[in-house]
Amino acid sequence: MTRSNALSMMPVPPVAARVGDTLDIVATPSLTVDLDAFDANLAAMAKFAARHGVALRPHAKAHKSSAIARRQVEAGAVGVCCQKLSEAYPFAAAGISSIHISNEFVGVDKLAMAVELASHVRLSVCVDSLPQVTALGEAASRAGVSIDVLAEIDAGQHRCGVTSEGALLTLVDGIAAQSALRFTGIQAYQGGLQHIVEYAARKAEAERTAECVARYLRALEARGLRCGIVTGSGTGTVEFDATSGVFTELQPGSYLFMDGDYGDNEWTGALRWHHSLFVLSTVMSAMRPGAAVCDVGLKGLAVDSGLPRSVKWLDGSSDLTLRYVSANDEHGMLEAQNAPDADTSQVIGKRLCLPPGHCDPTANLYDEYVCHRNGRVEEIWPIDARGLSR
Amino acid sequence: MTRSNALSMMPVPPVAARVGDTLDIVATPSLTVDLDAFDANLAAMAKFAARHGVALRPHAKAHKSSAIARRQVEAGAVGVCCQKLSEAYPFAAAGISSIHISNEFVGVDKLAMAVELASHVRLSVCVDSLPQVTALGEAASRAGVSIDVLAEIDAGQHRCGVTSEGALLTLVDGIAAQSALRFTGIQAYQGGLQHIVEYAARKAEAERTAECVARYLRALEARGLRCGIVTGSGTGTVEFDATSGVFTELQPGSYLFMDGDYGDNEWTGALRWHHSLFVLSTVMSAMRPGAAVCDVGLKGLAVDSGLPRSVKWLDGSSDLTLRYVSANDEHGMLEAQNAPDADTSQVIGKRLCLPPGHCDPTANLYDEYVCHRNGRVEEIWPIDARGLSR
Repeated sequence: MTRSNALSMMPVPPVAARVGDTLDIVATPSLTVDLDAFDANLAAMAKFAARHGVALRPHAKAHKSSAIARRQVEAGAVGVCCQKLSEAYPFAAAGISSIHISNEFVGVDKLAMAVELASHVRLSVCVDSLPQVTALGEAASRAGVSIDVLAEIDAGQHRCGVTSEGALLTLVDGIAAQSALRFTGIQAYQGGLQHIVEYAARKAEAERTAECVARYLRALEARGLRCGIVTGSGTGTVEFDATSGVFTELQPGSYLFMDGDYGDNEWTGALRWHHSLFVLSTVMSAMRPGAAVCDVGLKGLAVDSGLPRSVKWLDGSSDLTLRYVSANDEHGMLEAQNAPDADTSQVIGKRLCLPPGHCDPTANLYDEYVCHRNGRVEEIWPIDARGLSR
Repeated sequence: MTRSNALSMMPVPPVAARVGDTLDIVATPSLTVDLDAFDANLAAMAKFAARHGVALRPHAKAHKSSAIARRQVEAGAVGVCCQKLSEAYPFAAAGISSIHISNEFVGVDKLAMAVELASHVRLSVCVDSLPQVTALGEAASRAGVSIDVLAEIDAGQHRCGVTSEGALLTLVDGIAAQSALRFTGIQAYQGGLQHIVEYAARKAEAERTAECVARYLRALEARGLRCGIVTGSGTGTVEFDATSGVFTELQPGSYLFMDGDYGDNEWTGALRWHHSLFVLSTVMSAMRPGAAVCDVGLKGLAVDSGLPRSVKWLDGSSDLTLRYVSANDEHGMLEAQNAPDADTSQVIGKRLCLPPGHCDPTANLYDEYVCHRNGRVEEIWPIDARGLSR
């Protein structure tokens, strides 16, 4: 139980993968990205936004990787959204020069980050209360920086954002009273619509959201206030929001990965996404007929939006069709579909590709994406904003 | 969108806390440990194991911090359990010289880690299949290291472990055939019992588990095989397992933190635990009567075992009683209990202590514990095995 010189030379765990490795030697669990599917998603959203003349500002909370943000900007994005101030640092450090914090924040630690970020990038933030505006304006003024401010409106999600046109006007007056703040527009995000499965119902709700946003815009116009930016939307409603006539900027994030939750949506419109994100896992025990256990559970798969909907063998290594039926901390419980008596001992050591139910919190569990094409690792992207939740 | 020299000087986010800080200036969200409660839990389990003459080998998967493991060993633990090989590295580096991998593993990447660890610490591992034994024995032999091996039995959890006495004997024969492996005992973990709420029912099931373990031990004895170690147990059943007459070693982990899930258990026996782990959070928006939003959601609180059961104000900063009703990625939705019309705008900026539903995956989301006593930060412990899931 005591330390020795030998112990002090204890190395760190080996790397999981190297460029050029085949997927069958990548250490598991690893978070993998199918680059063909990823590239198709990246290009399709960029093309879609360009065709409709709306700005694309993808949400980096989904991937938390500056390597991905750079690719999004190279494909035409105007910058990225972050949900937290600390999350924005690696993107700023990687040269993403326009960052929108799509969320409220309060407290001296947060104000310090905001003014620091604003001295390095074009920063915009969301507000919904006057005390927040006053504190931000005074902090920015003291630091000699200028911050773009968007007023968040509650477009039906009942989370953050002002809930009346009167409250919006009061807030905008408060922003105008702060010389270090610039009122640049409004944010209206309706998260609850993104996962409405039926296409027509999702469309109808998105249209209702747009009508709500339009009411707020009319109230601003009646006061002679121009709203340069109307930002919002997500992967589930982007197709409708782009043509709504109210949104000038779109914030989708999950489209790059297309997780299980979004996979449940009906996609009968112009946009289709490909699953690109999989947790690579190994079967490490199979003691009972019709059952097996793999090496990824709650610490490698977020389960808030359900378990992996499918279990794909890497390179079709078995004929058994497995289902992922429950997650312990480090174990994934698998069952053979329609074969409760199947001899599963043959699959010990075989590898599985598991599409996460929810990409955002799953990515937040890993330090890197192992990116592959044609069965070989092509790039490894650090998840450099992993864990930055302040 | 391009990089500049100014951008390359972009700093990293500020530290969340410094020793000596009061909790009202610690950045949120932070994972905090109440040291009075923690110390009481640490001492109570050490004392309990010593009184019953069983070895204590706490599970480090719960806390993933070598700073905590060192305290456990200083209090009398014989070493720690890890669930994964990569997870063991920081503990080995910190001088924990006896580590048990309480799980099966397969694959050349895993064998390489096992032999590397075995050259630095006294390593024991679990096996349940002959091919795993053979591969491990050959790898250890090639590397010139010796590894202690425990055969895992399925004591009713139906996860890993052999399911018959015959299979156990075959496995033990396989271990004996490998000169680099030493058969040291069996592991029997019954995870499903840990959260049986009713004390008497939990006790009855623990006794049934002990009978199952005893059957396996008799089969070994009949072959003249001595079983030096019988390891297992968890926070929920440790009280019964310690006096079962079969277990020689206990593996509890959560007792240090006492999460919401364990808090739901009935504790009418000799052991009581105190909640010591809380996510410190700030209310950052409150736009609707009776509702508020705090700055911690799925990326700062594991929700697989439910939401925080209570919402405690830091320093009683409000009279409102809030409930945490749902988690988005970065938002926690709060509702005022029995006060749907309450004016919540007064609580913007106020701080909450949220006990996680499940400590293990929550700790895996953070890089450090902010440890406090009497309202001040006393120590900061790195979560150095965070994310090490291979």
